[in-house]
Amino acid sequence: MERVVVSQDVGERAAPGVLAGRSGIGEVTRVLSRFFDDKEAGAGVHGAAFVLLWRGLRSAAQGGKMIRPELVLTTHRELGGTSDSGAVSVAAAFELLHTSFLLHDDVIDGDTTRRGVTNLIGAFTAAALEDGAAQQAARAWGQAAGILAGDLLIHAAQGMVARTLIPADRRSLLLDLFDETVAVTAAGELRDVGLATGTRTAGMDEVLAIARGKTAHYSFQAPLRAGAILAGATENVLAALDVYGAHTGTAFQLRDDLLGVFGRPEVTGKSTFSDLRRVTMTPLVAYGMQTAYRSKLRNVLGDTVRSDADAEQARALLTSSGARAFVEQAISEHVQAAIEVARSAEIPAVFSEYLVAVSRSAGDRTW
Amino acid sequence: MERVVVSQDVGERAAPGVLAGRSGIGEVTRVLSRFFDDKEAGAGVHGAAFVLLWRGLRSAAQGGKMIRPELVLTTHRELGGTSDSGAVSVAAAFELLHTSFLLHDDVIDGDTTRRGVTNLIGAFTAAALEDGAAQQAARAWGQAAGILAGDLLIHAAQGMVARTLIPADRRSLLLDLFDETVAVTAAGELRDVGLATGTRTAGMDEVLAIARGKTAHYSFQAPLRAGAILAGATENVLAALDVYGAHTGTAFQLRDDLLGVFGRPEVTGKSTFSDLRRVTMTPLVAYGMQTAYRSKLRNVLGDTVRSDADAEQARALLTSSGARAFVEQAISEHVQAAIEVARSAEIPAVFSEYLVAVSRSAGDRTW
Repeated sequence: MERVVVSQDVGERAAPGVLAGRSGIGEVTRVLSRFFDDKEAGAGVHGAAFVLLWRGLRSAAQGGKMIRPELVLTTHRELGGTSDSGAVSVAAAFELLHTSFLLHDDVIDGDTTRRGVTNLIGAFTAAALEDGAAQQAARAWGQAAGILAGDLLIHAAQGMVARTLIPADRRSLLLDLFDETVAVTAAGELRDVGLATGTRTAGMDEVLAIARGKTAHYSFQAPLRAGAILAGATENVLAALDVYGAHTGTAFQLRDDLLGVFGRPEVTGKSTFSDLRRVTMTPLVAYGMQTAYRSKLRNVLGDTVRSDADAEQARALLTSSGARAFVEQAISEHVQAAIEVARSAEIPAVFSEYLVAVSRSAGDRTW
Repeated sequence: MERVVVSQDVGERAAPGVLAGRSGIGEVTRVLSRFFDDKEAGAGVHGAAFVLLWRGLRSAAQGGKMIRPELVLTTHRELGGTSDSGAVSVAAAFELLHTSFLLHDDVIDGDTTRRGVTNLIGAFTAAALEDGAAQQAARAWGQAAGILAGDLLIHAAQGMVARTLIPADRRSLLLDLFDETVAVTAAGELRDVGLATGTRTAGMDEVLAIARGKTAHYSFQAPLRAGAILAGATENVLAALDVYGAHTGTAFQLRDDLLGVFGRPEVTGKSTFSDLRRVTMTPLVAYGMQTAYRSKLRNVLGDTVRSDADAEQARALLTSSGARAFVEQAISEHVQAAIEVARSAEIPAVFSEYLVAVSRSAGDRTW
């Protein structure tokens, strides 16, 4: 295994709208850059493949929207926090955790692309094939690389929180928060995979709970809470942000599901086939399955989706069944609920308007 | 997914010899027991499968030899340390890390048994099959459970170190040590899997380096160093223990490889087939492959090993080729080298004799 062609650095994709505010995000990028420099420099003594693994990890951590770091930094600042460098460390830790989740999600789903380009798993698999490995051995090598790469970042994220230079009581609260975040996300992923085994169907409540567990918590609730803890916010503020984050995160995930089926791949960087082929039990699909379109939908989802025409048929049925409108309505309701909480008395006015804009952006985005 | 039959608690298998000293090990067992109680109690809100995952994790963490915790505790005590409760926490963290490595190792190798019983992956797979899942979906569910379970413990191990109540400078050294341990082990695993892709052969030096990376570091070098850091030992002592740990850990791993092929399954809890079937590039096999027996060995290793007679033939060739004697000799040399370091001036006399006994036990064991 002499080399691995990892995906090209695609740069940070600009997130249109308010989430592109990014004040202080440059510091987070610098911290992450130094982190990967150090790891890559130290990897050489452990063999060439380990250097390639860290290069692949750096690549995997790039190209994201940096939503979570921005939420940490803005919440900390708008709630009057003064632990600037601590906030940057914790923000960076969230991005590492996010990247590790994506990597293990890809291993679990058997995906070899992410954000429109070959991912770490795909790159290691391709390199092994090029070196003459058998198909199965090459896939095993790619999967092993993905598992170990995710392990390194899960571990590193908690280490970064543990080393954050802030008062011990706040650091302790942040360690607890990361524990909860890892638990909620792993549990959400487990339930999601469980539905995919096909031995049972899920009600809409459960499908929504999974969306919240898999994404809303670690992408919105946890970064908001981290920023608030760093700023020493009151329990009332923490509680309000938690409700706000759950609604916004759910709207974000529901939009993600719609974009996965109806979005423009050149904007989202996602195939609009993969969700349809995989019969991912999203709220969109779950709603359709509760209607009279159930048997028709069963016939057009899954492995049979092979062409644009197949995908178009599946989309048409999801629209006719009312599933698409149902999800649009749910997004709208979650955004409204989030906005109400954002405007409650606990939240300072300037911060309120930021949160309102974030919620709208999470629900409306086309990226 | 209503239930998962996880492997029965097999209890701690008594490790014969000096490693069974276990003074203070009861405290570690209690800390781990409380940890799993807390996690299981908190898992219910995240769904039934998550409760089963934590029960499976508790089961996975039991039945080990507790070698690493014992090394932490004994080293700390014999070097005059006074951070008793800190040493117990760190010892427990090593056991969690060890369990997470075993889980991800099993995912990577596709193994569904461990220590002679169905492992967490096998238990989740079997439960899905029982619930009527298709073979492939059930396997995917088992693999996902194994990945997520390992993630939870990797994260928890670092969290336990971060919360250890000891002076900040020592805690910081321990966080660094855990970073190094995770890196060395992941890199060793990556190289090991790389050899299994079959695109290249490895020299004996590389095979030995992999054995050291995959096992010796986290099983011997790191626990010894952790105990010494907790006791505030000098650089000279740390350096001596590092060399000692590398030799003892290598002897331990080489014995493991021999037991995997020539051992008694009812004592080791391992199949003596799986190493032969998998053509694991151990020093044992690598040596055989360097001799005139190469082509004969190629014919009897791997998928063709299906019966006791096949396995017996493979064992006979590994013996005739001199591979078995070579590994026995290497074990003996590493134990001797370890004993020399253990008796050097830096190490207090009582501790020296303990270390000598540990090395002999690591090299001689039949379990």
